[in-house]
Amino acid sequence: MEITSPTLLVKTAQALRNIKKMQNKAKANNLIFRPHFKTHNSNIIGYWFKDLGINKITVSSLKMAEYFADYGWKDITVAIPFNYKEHVQINCLADYIALNLLAVSDTAVTQLDKKLSKPVGIFIEIDTGYNRTGIKYDDFESIDKILNVIIKSEFMGFRGFLIHSGNTYHSKNLSEIQEIHNFTVTKMNDLKNRYIAQFPKLILSIGDTPSCSQIDDLTGVDEIRPGNFVFYDLMQYYLNSCKIDEISLFVACPVIAVYPERNEVVIHGGAVHFSKEFQLVNTDDGNSSMIYGKVCKLNDEIIEINNTSPYIKSLSQEHGIIKADDEFCNKINIGDVLTVIPVHSCLTKACMGEFAVI
Amino acid sequence: MEITSPTLLVKTAQALRNIKKMQNKAKANNLIFRPHFKTHNSNIIGYWFKDLGINKITVSSLKMAEYFADYGWKDITVAIPFNYKEHVQINCLADYIALNLLAVSDTAVTQLDKKLSKPVGIFIEIDTGYNRTGIKYDDFESIDKILNVIIKSEFMGFRGFLIHSGNTYHSKNLSEIQEIHNFTVTKMNDLKNRYIAQFPKLILSIGDTPSCSQIDDLTGVDEIRPGNFVFYDLMQYYLNSCKIDEISLFVACPVIAVYPERNEVVIHGGAVHFSKEFQLVNTDDGNSSMIYGKVCKLNDEIIEINNTSPYIKSLSQEHGIIKADDEFCNKINIGDVLTVIPVHSCLTKACMGEFAVI
Repeated sequence: MEITSPTLLVKTAQALRNIKKMQNKAKANNLIFRPHFKTHNSNIIGYWFKDLGINKITVSSLKMAEYFADYGWKDITVAIPFNYKEHVQINCLADYIALNLLAVSDTAVTQLDKKLSKPVGIFIEIDTGYNRTGIKYDDFESIDKILNVIIKSEFMGFRGFLIHSGNTYHSKNLSEIQEIHNFTVTKMNDLKNRYIAQFPKLILSIGDTPSCSQIDDLTGVDEIRPGNFVFYDLMQYYLNSCKIDEISLFVACPVIAVYPERNEVVIHGGAVHFSKEFQLVNTDDGNSSMIYGKVCKLNDEIIEINNTSPYIKSLSQEHGIIKADDEFCNKINIGDVLTVIPVHSCLTKACMGEFAVI
Repeated sequence: MEITSPTLLVKTAQALRNIKKMQNKAKANNLIFRPHFKTHNSNIIGYWFKDLGINKITVSSLKMAEYFADYGWKDITVAIPFNYKEHVQINCLADYIALNLLAVSDTAVTQLDKKLSKPVGIFIEIDTGYNRTGIKYDDFESIDKILNVIIKSEFMGFRGFLIHSGNTYHSKNLSEIQEIHNFTVTKMNDLKNRYIAQFPKLILSIGDTPSCSQIDDLTGVDEIRPGNFVFYDLMQYYLNSCKIDEISLFVACPVIAVYPERNEVVIHGGAVHFSKEFQLVNTDDGNSSMIYGKVCKLNDEIIEINNTSPYIKSLSQEHGIIKADDEFCNKINIGDVLTVIPVHSCLTKACMGEFAVI
C-alpha cells in the first residue's frame, strides 16, 4: 500500500502484546480487568480484547456504550457522571446489558431513580486529588446521601467506589506516581472498610494508565480500567509508562514541502489528524517547548527516536510543521512519508477513526 | 428539543448574515469570492453559499474536494501544497471539475506533470512571513523554475499567486494586521508586475479571516478565500475580527457535576467535542491563562459574555471543567445545559460533524 494522504497505522502485534501484558498484570494481582474502550472506540480492536476472554469494558459516554452494546458487549461501565436526563437511553441499554453508571450527586441519583425501569449498577466516583469529578474521599455525608437513595431504589444496585487518578499525568517519576497511588488505595480502603458490612460485594476500581502500567503491585484494589495502554503514545513515553517499542499507533504523513534553510519540513497531517494535544519537552537551552508529535523510524519491531529526532512544532488544520536537523532536511523529498508518534493516541484515534494495520 | 448530550448548534440566520457581509465586501472591492469550506466541511452549509450565487470554493485536501465535487461544486482550489503521488485522485477530479492546485516546488510540479491527463490550474503559493508553506516572495529563481515547467506542460495552466497570511493570527490589533496585509499586497503586486506580461490573466489570492474581516479596503488583490468568518469563534473575537453577536457556532453541553467549593462546574463536553485549541487570555492578576471555551448567554439575537463569564479551564476526552464565580455555581444544577463558544470553530466543527440549527 502506498500512502499518499495522512493514514493512521496500528501495529497489531504490539497492541496485542500490550493487551496481554495488562491482562496478565490484572490476573497476577487477582483483579477484574475492565479496559477503557474510549482509547480506540473501535469494534475491530474490541474483538482483539474479546478474543483474549475479556468481557467487561469501560466507555466514556452512553453513545459509546450503545455502539459497543450493538457489537455484543454485555457488561459496560460508563465512566463519566451520568446525566439523569438521558434516562431513555439508560433504560434502553439497561434492558439488554449489565450497565454501570457513575454517581457524584444524590439529587441526580434521586432524579434518575424516578425514571428507571431497568436495573443499573451504580458506582460512586471518588476524588482523591485529581479535582475533576467525584466526591471527596472523606465526604461521608455526601456518600451516605447517595447510598440512602440506592438502598431504597427498586432498580439501583451499589457496585462500589470508582476513581480516576488523572493527577498521575502530572507526575515527574515513578515515586510520585506511587505516592498518588498509595494515597488513593489507602483512602479507597478506608471507604471499603466503612461500608463493606453494609455492601459485602462492593469493589474498588481504579483506572489511570500511568499507575496501571508502572506499578507492579496493585494490591488493595479490585478492578482496573486503563485504556491508553493498548496504543500508548508520546505522553506515556515521557511519563515512563511504556518503552518506545511498546507504542503501537502512528500517523503516516506525506511530505508536502521542504525548507532546509529553515530546518523545517511540512507534512500533510494537521490538527484534524493529530488533535492539538501537546507535550512539553525540555530543550537543550534549558527551556521547554511544546511539541505535537515526533517522527520515528519504524523498521519491523524497532522504533527509534532520540533527542534530535524531528518533531512537530506546530499544527494548523491540515498542515504540520516538522523541525529537523540539516541531515534530515537534506535527504527528505516531497512525497516521502514520515511516521509520526502522536502525543495522545486516544484523541488521535478519535480524530482519524479508520486505521490500517501493520 | 431537549439537549441531553453535547450538541453543536449553528445559528443559521447569523451564519447567513456573515456570508452575505463577506460576499458584499468582495463585491465592493471587485474581488472573486472563493470561501474556504474547511471551516464547515458540510454539504448543507455549502448550499447556503450556493443559494447566494457563490460557485467557487477553497478546500484543504483532495478528499474534501471530492466530497464537495460530489455535491455539484465545479470550481475548487485545494489550498495545500499538492502531493504528486495523489495523481490518480487529481486526474479523476480534474476530469469533471475546474481544479486548482498549489505548487511550492518545481520538482513536485515536474513529477505531477508526468502523470497528468486532465487540465489543472496551478497557483504558486507565496510566503510573505507566515513561514508555513510557500516560496519566499523574492525567490524569483524558484518561481521561474515552476513557471518553466508549467509553460511546457500540456495540462497545466498558471492561475496566479496565492498566499495565506496566517501571521495575522498573532497580531495584537488592527494596525498590525494592516501592516502584514500591506506588506503582503506590496510583495504580491511586485510579483504581478513581474509576470503579468507573460501571464495576463494571473490573479492574486489572499485568504486569512482577520485581514478579510477587519480591513475594509482590499484593493490590490483579485480574490479572497476566508473560511472561518461563517461561524467566527473566541479566537476571532479576541482578534477583533468579529463582534460577539456575529459568532454563529456553539456547543451546548449538559452539566454533569457541580463543585461550588472549587468554583467549578463540570460539563459533558471534552476534547473530542471542542478540540484542544486554547486561547491565551489576560487574567486580573496581570498574567495570562489558557482557556478552551467560554460560556455565553444566548437569548434570541443577543449573545453576552464578559470578563467574569465562566470559561473552560481544562478538557479531558469527554469532560470539561468550567471555572465560574459563586453566583453562577450556586444557581447551576446537574442536567442544566450550558452554551459554550469554542476557541476555534473550524476544529470544533471537524470534531463534531453533525449540527442542529437554531
